[in-house]
Amino acid sequence: MTRPIITFTSDFGTQDWFVGVVHGVVHELAPEARVVNLTHAIPPGDVERAAFVLEAAAADFPAGTIHLAVVDPGVGTARRALAVRAREQFFVGPDNGVLEHGLSDPAAEARRLSDGRFFRHPVSRTFHGRDVFAPVAAHLARAVPFVELGPVVSDPRRLPPPPLVHGAGEIEGRIRYIDRFGNALTDLRDEALERAFPGASEESLVVRVGSQTIRGIARSYGDRPVGTVVAVMGSSGRLEIAMVGGDVSLRFGIGVGDHVRVRLRA
Amino acid sequence: MTRPIITFTSDFGTQDWFVGVVHGVVHELAPEARVVNLTHAIPPGDVERAAFVLEAAAADFPAGTIHLAVVDPGVGTARRALAVRAREQFFVGPDNGVLEHGLSDPAAEARRLSDGRFFRHPVSRTFHGRDVFAPVAAHLARAVPFVELGPVVSDPRRLPPPPLVHGAGEIEGRIRYIDRFGNALTDLRDEALERAFPGASEESLVVRVGSQTIRGIARSYGDRPVGTVVAVMGSSGRLEIAMVGGDVSLRFGIGVGDHVRVRLRA
Amino acid sequence: MTRPIITFTSDFGTQDWFVGVVHGVVHELAPEARVVNLTHAIPPGDVERAAFVLEAAAADFPAGTIHLAVVDPGVGTARRALAVRAREQFFVGPDNGVLEHGLSDPAAEARRLSDGRFFRHPVSRTFHGRDVFAPVAAHLARAVPFVELGPVVSDPRRLPPPPLVHGAGEIEGRIRYIDRFGNALTDLRDEALERAFPGASEESLVVRVGSQTIRGIARSYGDRPVGTVVAVMGSSGRLEIAMVGGDVSLRFGIGVGDHVRVRLRA
Repeated sequence: MTRPIITFTSDFGTQDWFVGVVHGVVHELAPEARVVNLTHAIPPGDVERAAFVLEAAAADFPAGTIHLAVVDPGVGTARRALAVRAREQFFVGPDNGVLEHGLSDPAAEARRLSDGRFFRHPVSRTFHGRDVFAPVAAHLARAVPFVELGPVVSDPRRLPPPPLVHGAGEIEGRIRYIDRFGNALTDLRDEALERAFPGASEESLVVRVGSQTIRGIARSYGDRPVGTVVAVMGSSGRLEIAMVGGDVSLRFGIGVGDHVRVRLRA
Repeated sequence: MTRPIITFTSDFGTQDWFVGVVHGVVHELAPEARVVNLTHAIPPGDVERAAFVLEAAAADFPAGTIHLAVVDPGVGTARRALAVRAREQFFVGPDNGVLEHGLSDPAAEARRLSDGRFFRHPVSRTFHGRDVFAPVAAHLARAVPFVELGPVVSDPRRLPPPPLVHGAGEIEGRIRYIDRFGNALTDLRDEALERAFPGASEESLVVRVGSQTIRGIARSYGDRPVGTVVAVMGSSGRLEIAMVGGDVSLRFGIGVGDHVRVRLRA
Repeated sequence: MTRPIITFTSDFGTQDWFVGVVHGVVHELAPEARVVNLTHAIPPGDVERAAFVLEAAAADFPAGTIHLAVVDPGVGTARRALAVRAREQFFVGPDNGVLEHGLSDPAAEARRLSDGRFFRHPVSRTFHGRDVFAPVAAHLARAVPFVELGPVVSDPRRLPPPPLVHGAGEIEGRIRYIDRFGNALTDLRDEALERAFPGASEESLVVRVGSQTIRGIARSYGDRPVGTVVAVMGSSGRLEIAMVGGDVSLRFGIGVGDHVRVRLRA
C-alpha cells in the first residue's frame, strides 16, 4: 500500500495552532499519508523564500510527493488557488509565485482549484491552508486524478530569479538564501559552473563575494581551519559560501541578493 | 481500521526532549494513533493561553479526537489529573483550567485519572505529561472506555472568560490572543454579533479598539490597501483585528485583555 | 507488524528544510517507522549538548528504538560514521562523541558505516544526515542486521563527563543542562546520592550551587511557595535546581559547568 508524502511549507510559525490544524485535516482525509514539515518559519508573506525552500528540497523527495506551500497574503482575494504537476511530483498552493519550482519545469501543468468536492466546507475567507490547499493535497494523496481538480491555467504567476550573468571569463550569480548555520547559498549550480568552466578543477576557481576572495572550492565545511571562509558545493547542488565553524553571513554581512562572481584563477 | 488523532499542546518548548518523549510514549502504546502538535510555545504555566488554543482549534478536528494539554505548573502537588468527554472529543490534562473548552460544553463529563493501569510506571513527581497524561491519551486512542479512567469529578477547575458586555446599541468584548502575524483575536464570535445586531450588514458595523476605529468588517486580510487596519471574521469564527501586510499588535500596542467595542454605524 | 521508532536529534534548526528532508528519506525507505523529533535546537556543533539530550531521553523509549543524532561539524572530513548497539537500542551518527550515551554501556558494540548499500546515492560531501545517517537508521528500522553495517570500531570517540567528586561527607557534581523552564539539571543521579548518603531522607540533604543553599529535596516544582529555589529529583533521574514558578538559571546566573555540592544537614 502506498504511503504518499505530503511536504508542508508555510509562514504560519509554530506558536499558534495553524500548522496542527492542517495536519489534522490531512490525516482525517488521507490517513495513510505522511505529512513532513519542511519549515513554517518563512517570514510572513515572503513568497520568494518559500519558493526557494521548495526548489532546494523537492528533489530529495520521491516521485509522487505532494508539496503543500501556504504563504498566502492574498487569501480571500481574487488570487487563484493552484495545483501543479511537474517533475513527477505535485505542488499545491496559491498562485503568487510560491510554486515557482514546479512551474519552472517546461513540462509543468497547472490547474486552478475550482472543484468544491475537494475542499473543506464551509470555506473560510482567511484560512485556505485548512479549507482548500490541505484538502486538495490530501485528495491527491488518495489518488484523485490531477485533471479533476479544475481547468488548466495557462498564465500562472511566475517568479524567475535574476539570470546568471556571463562576463569575460567570469560567471556572476547571487546569494539566494542564508541558512541556519549562516551559510550563504547562491544560485550558481554545479551544471552552470561546469558549462562556464568546462573541465576546470575545483582548485582552479576563484569565488568573490563582498570583500571576500576565496581560492578553490573546498570539499566540505570542515576541510579548512576554523574561521576560514570557504566556497563549497552544497547538498542541494549549488555553490555555498561558508565559514568553517562560524556564521559567514553574520561575520561579513553577506545577505540575500549580494553578487557572487566565479572566475578561473589567474 | 481507525487512526485516531491525538493533538498535543504544551509549554514544553522544542529545545529539550520533552515533546519527543511524549510522542514516544504514545507511539509505543498506540502505534496507530497520529500525534499532531498544536503548539509547544505556550509560555511556561500560561494555562489561559493554552485553553484558548484548544478552544480555537478543537472544532477543526474530527469526532473522536483526543486533545492532550500539558501546561502543568502544579505537577506533583495535590492538583487532580482529568479526562473530559465533551463535544464528541476527549480532553486530557491537569485540573487547572487548561481543559476549559471541553468543560464549557454543558454535556461535558469529567473523570479523575486514578486508575494506575493506564499510567506509565514508575510515575515521576515532575513529568506527568510522560507518565500520566500521554499514556491515558494513548489508551483512549486504543478505545479504552472513558468511564474506566476513574470516578466522575463534579467540580473541575473552570476558567470562564470575562462575559461580553451589552451596552446601548453596543457589544463589548476583549482581545484574547495575538497570533504569529500580529493579528488580535477577540472573544466576539459571529453568533454573538448576529444576536446583537440581527440582520446587520458587514458594512454597517463599526469596531473600536484602543485608538483605532474600523468601519465595516472586511472579507479578508488582503481586501484593503497594505497598512490598513481591518476587522475580519477569522477562521475560528471570531472577530479579529489585523493590519493588511503588517502586525497590528506591534504597530498599535494592542494586547490581550484590551477592550473591543462593536456598534452600528451612525 | 512492528512500527519502530527513530528519534532524531540535530543542530539543524527548523527554519530550513534539512529536518524535513531527513524525515522524507526515512519515510521513503521505511514507511512503517515513526520519526520522533527530540530536538533540532542544538547550537551548531554543540556535540556535548546533543549527547546529553540522548542520555536524558533514551531510556524513555522502548527497546529497538533507533536514535539518529546529527551534530556533525566534521561532515565530509575523515571523521568516521558510526552505528552503536547498546542498551537494547541503536544509536547512529558521526564519531565525534555525540553517541556517548550508547558508548557508555559496557556492552556497547560500535560499527563503522562503510557499506554503501545502506546509503543514499550520490553521497554528498556536506549532508550525511540525508545521505548516510538517515538511510542507515531506516535500514535498521527495516531490520537490516546491525552486523552488516560495517566493521567493528574499537576506539570510538568518547565524551566522558567530569567524574563526581566525593569529599568529606559531601558529593560534588556539575550543572549539565539548562532546560526551557530554566531548570538546571545536574549529573548527580539518584543512585549516586543513595550511594553517598545511604538511607538519608530527602529532608536531611543540603544542596549548594553558587550563592544558593537549599535545604531538603522537594517532591515537585510546585511543592513550595512561588519564588522559592528548590532541588528536585527530576524526571530523567537526576538532581535538578529549579525556582517555583520561575527561571532559576536566569535569576541567579546558574549555567552549565557550575559546581553543585550535596551534603548531610548539620
